[in-house]
Amino acid sequence: MSDASFFKRGAGLTVGDIGALTGAELGAGTDPARLITGLGPLDRAGPADLSFFDNPRYLDQLASSRAGCVIVAAKHLAAAPAGLPHLVAGNVHVAFAAAGRALFPAALTPAAILPAAGISPRAEIDPSAAIEPDVTIEAFAVVGPHARIGSGTVVSPGAVVGTGCTVGRNCRIGPQVSLSNAFLGNRVVLHPGVKIGQDGFGYVPGPEGLDKVVQIGRVIVQDDVEIGANSTIDRGAVRDTVIGEGTKIDNQVQIGHNVAVGRHCVIVAQVGISGSTTIGDGVMIGGQTGINGHVEIGDGAQIAAVSVVAGDVPAGARWGGIPAKPVRQWFREMRFLSELAKKGRSPRHDSDE
Amino acid sequence: MSDASFFKRGAGLTVGDIGALTGAELGAGTDPARLITGLGPLDRAGPADLSFFDNPRYLDQLASSRAGCVIVAAKHLAAAPAGLPHLVAGNVHVAFAAAGRALFPAALTPAAILPAAGISPRAEIDPSAAIEPDVTIEAFAVVGPHARIGSGTVVSPGAVVGTGCTVGRNCRIGPQVSLSNAFLGNRVVLHPGVKIGQDGFGYVPGPEGLDKVVQIGRVIVQDDVEIGANSTIDRGAVRDTVIGEGTKIDNQVQIGHNVAVGRHCVIVAQVGISGSTTIGDGVMIGGQTGINGHVEIGDGAQIAAVSVVAGDVPAGARWGGIPAKPVRQWFREMRFLSELAKKGRSPRHDSDE
Amino acid sequence: MSDASFFKRGAGLTVGDIGALTGAELGAGTDPARLITGLGPLDRAGPADLSFFDNPRYLDQLASSRAGCVIVAAKHLAAAPAGLPHLVAGNVHVAFAAAGRALFPAALTPAAILPAAGISPRAEIDPSAAIEPDVTIEAFAVVGPHARIGSGTVVSPGAVVGTGCTVGRNCRIGPQVSLSNAFLGNRVVLHPGVKIGQDGFGYVPGPEGLDKVVQIGRVIVQDDVEIGANSTIDRGAVRDTVIGEGTKIDNQVQIGHNVAVGRHCVIVAQVGISGSTTIGDGVMIGGQTGINGHVEIGDGAQIAAVSVVAGDVPAGARWGGIPAKPVRQWFREMRFLSELAKKGRSPRHDSDE
Repeated sequence: MSDASFFKRGAGLTVGDIGALTGAELGAGTDPARLITGLGPLDRAGPADLSFFDNPRYLDQLASSRAGCVIVAAKHLAAAPAGLPHLVAGNVHVAFAAAGRALFPAALTPAAILPAAGISPRAEIDPSAAIEPDVTIEAFAVVGPHARIGSGTVVSPGAVVGTGCTVGRNCRIGPQVSLSNAFLGNRVVLHPGVKIGQDGFGYVPGPEGLDKVVQIGRVIVQDDVEIGANSTIDRGAVRDTVIGEGTKIDNQVQIGHNVAVGRHCVIVAQVGISGSTTIGDGVMIGGQTGINGHVEIGDGAQIAAVSVVAGDVPAGARWGGIPAKPVRQWFREMRFLSELAKKGRSPRHDSDE
Repeated sequence: MSDASFFKRGAGLTVGDIGALTGAELGAGTDPARLITGLGPLDRAGPADLSFFDNPRYLDQLASSRAGCVIVAAKHLAAAPAGLPHLVAGNVHVAFAAAGRALFPAALTPAAILPAAGISPRAEIDPSAAIEPDVTIEAFAVVGPHARIGSGTVVSPGAVVGTGCTVGRNCRIGPQVSLSNAFLGNRVVLHPGVKIGQDGFGYVPGPEGLDKVVQIGRVIVQDDVEIGANSTIDRGAVRDTVIGEGTKIDNQVQIGHNVAVGRHCVIVAQVGISGSTTIGDGVMIGGQTGINGHVEIGDGAQIAAVSVVAGDVPAGARWGGIPAKPVRQWFREMRFLSELAKKGRSPRHDSDE
Repeated sequence: MSDASFFKRGAGLTVGDIGALTGAELGAGTDPARLITGLGPLDRAGPADLSFFDNPRYLDQLASSRAGCVIVAAKHLAAAPAGLPHLVAGNVHVAFAAAGRALFPAALTPAAILPAAGISPRAEIDPSAAIEPDVTIEAFAVVGPHARIGSGTVVSPGAVVGTGCTVGRNCRIGPQVSLSNAFLGNRVVLHPGVKIGQDGFGYVPGPEGLDKVVQIGRVIVQDDVEIGANSTIDRGAVRDTVIGEGTKIDNQVQIGHNVAVGRHCVIVAQVGISGSTTIGDGVMIGGQTGINGHVEIGDGAQIAAVSVVAGDVPAGARWGGIPAKPVRQWFREMRFLSELAKKGRSPRHDSDE
């Protein structure tokens, strides 16, 4: 990208540096001294930009790319036009990501909005809150009684850290975030509008309407969790809602009360997880998928996007569909029913006897 | 739960008190004088905690529970291990919820964030707004011209009560809520990030693009409604959007313009209701379900989660599926198609003639 | 509507004026001098209100309507009761919308919350921001360093315009909006809680968990775009996320990184569009639909609500279903499978050989 308006180019890295950093091998005829200062897609990258090629859909963009260097997989090497500087990587995405982090360290975590560090005189902070040194609390943020905030953390404008909440070190609490009844670990990133710790959804029929089931649990968010914009995580009813270490959650995800999500999970946008469900470590859940309450999803399971998980999913399984089932079975059923329907007429229904 | 960090234990109730309060009967060998001060799930509850057992999935937890008292149904009585204090209730959830409300009255409604009651000098309140006595308006909240706010109501940090809006008595307007063109009854609870009263979504094709259909209706939210975090309710086009008395709405629900939701409905997370649809009293809608515009759902209907309601649903009906149909038919069709697909080969297609 | 509480009636228009303005023809026996000052649905409109009839579902409301004038299509003319003043329009909705805009110009864009124009002393504005004359920035809004805001724009309470962002002229930035890494054109309307420009969702497996893929692109929102409450639009990874001129987006829509949406599209509530997808001009996408990443949807395509788009959709096509396919095929398949399932027994499965 020729104009990275919001993330300025730094001193850059040579192609050789990038190879060393990522373990990628220098392509034939590629000058290791060439300087790379930016990143770009194949069709936009200029001579100082690193790009990558992984999807055959974009072969024509590779053919005409002006990138300073392109990371390609060995299997796609033949597709690289002569004279295009390149690196050969075992995992193109991993190598490109490593280079990107080195070139743009400022993009690793959201920055404070306002340039003044420290505590804004226009933030509202209860005197009983315990704020470590080197915390930034921006204008119009609120920190309630007995809250604790660790050093290196930024609380953005309009965010609310409720009574008794703990926020660890080097966290980013985005604009308009609301935290209540929650404990956060270190290096947690909450994007704008995340709401954590409000009442779970529980009612019972009463004589004059619906009566509330009190929700006295907490939300525990472990280290290195990142949660996308406008996602909502309710506190537990009588146990805790837990988001495990290193788990990454996209925008507009809804997580109900008492849910336990394991470590290093990936949960894509608009997923909904109903109450009291348990999700193992390393689970991946595609976008818009809905997961029933009180089910268990085993470690390492992968659930396709837009699925509906009605019951337990075994560890390591790949499931999808409505309702979700093993991917192989799902594909076979979809193919079969589609074929059947294409024939467009009812099958014979005479007796087998 | 041994450490209810955010909701402190009070004086507590004896098991006998709880029986009297909930109508549950004292179990064999259970001491009515035992003191209960907290709530907990079977696997975490300690000797001063009340728990409940209702889901056979958790039988092993019942067997090893250290709870001070467990509420069980008569049909599960045999599962309770000898020596475990227990109460026997007709409806376990209703009894447990009643005890919970008595033990933790502070959890019935969200509390103000900051300890100071009254109107924060850091709130922005138009002089023409009519604020009754005993209202709390926290820092960085905004109350627009001619708005009216009833006594006992809390307006949280960052919330906006727009021009001319009415908020009744004993309401909770959560952090970062936006209200415009709306009238709220009494005891309404809006969780963080709820947006009520913005323009409905209406456009017509025009000579240079899409032209707006003005949205001049209102949103009427009746008494005792509770609305979950980040839910959105648009104002009507030329009529009102109405949420009926006692209805409970979960997080991230979307309600379009002109929708009328009846009384004492339950609408689970991520449901979307399209414009001009009418929903009767006592309707339950499962999570992620989508409801078409201009349809009518009769009183007491129940719609399964992740369904798509394309047309009218009769009163009292139980529907589900995509598109939604009576639950019995839906299950039968799913079973049949799944069986058919499992056979994995096309049925015979010769002529019946 | 007899009491348009939030949008006051003005001097009004005569029925003749409305006919001239909209191209609708005066109905038989209708007095062109009758004064219209409001809008209402058939069942609520009074003698000074304009209404419309287009949906045979509401025939009984037409029969008993007290409206001052009803816009009807020629094909429904026979349904209008004798004596009901009416206008006959080629497109009822277009005519009604044009009249509505003329009667309630204040409803065309959201108003500022507080009556004072200009920059509130309680807004936080970095001195390096460039604010044109005639900008309103309300209490508790934040404008970061080097941001630029065009004349006629309103920034509402609690909104955050991040470092270096550009907001064009006559925009409405609603309450609790967060903007970062974004350039907005003119006349852009962002409803409450919209979040634009936060990190796209990109991770790669690393030695100790998931490593971030830096997101250094921007969000470009062109002129006349309107975006609904609590929608989220992520910035690009190494290219930009773009929302084309005149496109209208409903509430709770999620748009991933690198997505390019064309001009004059309509995207209904709770839609999710995965990363790097390209959507042409004039595309319509029904509510709750999910669109896969890296697909292309051609100009003028229409996607039904609650569909799942797995691959490319040709220009001008009408698709729907899970997965989406041409509407005609989808309907045929649904009908066939439903018929098949209704028969409720397995078809014959003997050999064809």
